[in-house]
Amino acid sequence: MTKAKMSVAELDAFLLKEFPQAFAAGNITIERADGDSCRIRERFHEGMLRPGGTVSGPTLMALADVAMYVVLLSAIGPVGLAVTTNLTINFLRKGAPGNDVLAEARLLKLGKRLAVGEVTLKSGALPDPIAHVTATYSIPNV
Amino acid sequence: MTKAKMSVAELDAFLLKEFPQAFAAGNITIERADGDSCRIRERFHEGMLRPGGTVSGPTLMALADVAMYVVLLSAIGPVGLAVTTNLTINFLRKGAPGNDVLAEARLLKLGKRLAVGEVTLKSGALPDPIAHVTATYSIPNV
Amino acid sequence: MTKAKMSVAELDAFLLKEFPQAFAAGNITIERADGDSCRIRERFHEGMLRPGGTVSGPTLMALADVAMYVVLLSAIGPVGLAVTTNLTINFLRKGAPGNDVLAEARLLKLGKRLAVGEVTLKSGALPDPIAHVTATYSIPNV
Amino acid sequence: MTKAKMSVAELDAFLLKEFPQAFAAGNITIERADGDSCRIRERFHEGMLRPGGTVSGPTLMALADVAMYVVLLSAIGPVGLAVTTNLTINFLRKGAPGNDVLAEARLLKLGKRLAVGEVTLKSGALPDPIAHVTATYSIPNV
Repeated sequence: MTKAKMSVAELDAFLLKEFPQAFAAGNITIERADGDSCRIRERFHEGMLRPGGTVSGPTLMALADVAMYVVLLSAIGPVGLAVTTNLTINFLRKGAPGNDVLAEARLLKLGKRLAVGEVTLKSGALPDPIAHVTATYSIPNV
Repeated sequence: MTKAKMSVAELDAFLLKEFPQAFAAGNITIERADGDSCRIRERFHEGMLRPGGTVSGPTLMALADVAMYVVLLSAIGPVGLAVTTNLTINFLRKGAPGNDVLAEARLLKLGKRLAVGEVTLKSGALPDPIAHVTATYSIPNV
Repeated sequence: MTKAKMSVAELDAFLLKEFPQAFAAGNITIERADGDSCRIRERFHEGMLRPGGTVSGPTLMALADVAMYVVLLSAIGPVGLAVTTNLTINFLRKGAPGNDVLAEARLLKLGKRLAVGEVTLKSGALPDPIAHVTATYSIPNV
Repeated sequence: MTKAKMSVAELDAFLLKEFPQAFAAGNITIERADGDSCRIRERFHEGMLRPGGTVSGPTLMALADVAMYVVLLSAIGPVGLAVTTNLTINFLRKGAPGNDVLAEARLLKLGKRLAVGEVTLKSGALPDPIAHVTATYSIPNV
C-alpha cells in the first residue's frame, strides 16, 4: 500500500512535459516513488563528467532537484508550479567512472506551503554517498 | 563491536572541558556514540523556549553542533581544535512543550581534512523531526 | 527617508517581549534598521566565548537570527509569528577577544510568504567578516 | 592595480580546458576577475529555460559554481584540483525571458585549505537578484 498520488508512469509523463531538458534525453528513470521517498537513476553518459572523470557538480545538483520534485509530486499530485526555494549540497566523494548515478529522496516535512526533503546521491552500487542535498520547495496555493 | 575511539565517559569529560557553557549545566547527556553516529539528549528546561513554548532556534543549532562534535570525536579521538566551518539547519515543526530534545548525528564523510554529517532533531518521543542539520567540521593537521 | 515600518525604539520594545532570552540581558543593541537592512551589536561578555577565546558558533547563529528578524520587522511591521525556516552559516575567521560582535543584515527578497536575507558578522572594527549567514523566514498570512 | 594572478585571457584558456562542457559552447564570458571578485555572463540561449520561460535551477547553480571557480583561480592562480565541497543556493525571483544571466562572485575568505565566497545572480540589467549562492572550495596542498 502506498501514499503515492501518482504512479511512476504518470510521473514519467508529467516530467517529460515539465522538465524536457532533464527527461527528453531518456537518461533519467524513476525507479520508485511512494509519497514519502523515491529513487531515480541517471544512466551514465559522457556528458555528466568533468575532465578527470568526476561526475560534475551541476549534474548532481540537477539530479537531486529532480528527485525532490519527483517525491513531492508523488506526495501531492501533479502540481506544476512548485518551485525550489533553497538547496544545499555537500559534495562528499568521487564516484567511479562509468557508473550510473542514483538519487534517493525523502520528505522531511510536507506542509501546506513548504516541503523540505533530503537527497542522498550514490555512484552505482558503491555504498558511500557521493553527495547529500537538502532542499525546500514552495507549494503554490491551489 | 564499535569503531569508537572514545567511550561515553571519556567524551563527557572532554566536552565538559571544551564546551563548558553547553555541558556544565548538566542538561546535555550523551546516550551513545559509536564512531559512525551518536545520540545526545538535552533535558527540558525553560531556558530552551521562546515565548509561545517553541524550542528556540539557537537551542537547536547549538545542540546539533554539539552532536556533530560528539560523533566526530568518537570517530577520531580527542582533537580539540576541530571547528565547524559550515552549518545548514532546516526548521521543520514545533516540538511539544516540556519535551526533552534529542539529536541523532551521523557522519556522511570522514576525510583527513573535512568531516560532514547530518543531525536529526526530535522532540521527546514524537516520531517526526523538528529540525534537520548538515554541518562540516574542519579537522586540524595532527 | 526610510522604508522602515517600525522605529528602533518600537523594535526594541517588541523584541524585548518576543526574544526575552536574547534581549533582556541588555547585551544586544539595534544600531539602525531601515526596512532594507539593519545593524545590531552584541556587547562583549564572557558568555559568548568558547575556551580559547573564540566567539562560539551558537552566539553567532543566534545573533544572525535576531538580525534577520530585526530587518524583517522593520520591513513588514510587528508580525510576531514569522519563523525561520532555513539558516546556513559559514564560519570564516576567529574574532579578537574582547570585541563586540556586529551583525549587518540585508533583505535579498521580501515576498508575501517568504523573506530571504543575508547577514555579515564582524568582530568589532576588524574589516573581515567572522561569519556569513543566509536565512529564510516564513511570513504568516495576516 | 589588481591582485589577480591570472588575466581574463589566461582564465579563459584554463577554463576551456577544465570545464569544456560549460565553456566550449561559447555562452559564458568572463567580464572581469581581480583576485577578490569577478563577473561572468551567460548569454541567453533556449537551453537555459524551463517550460514557462524561467531560467532553470541547474543553469543558475552551474553558473554560480563557475563564477566561484573563476574568482578563486584569479586569487590563487591555475590550480586544477580545487573542488566545491558545499554550495547553498536561494532562488529569489524569476528573471525576464531573453535576458543574459550575470553572476558576480566575491571571496569571503581565502584560507590555505578552504575558500568561501558568495555569488549574486541577476537577469540582464534588472536590479534585483534572481538567486544568491554561498559556496566553499577545498584547495589542494601544493
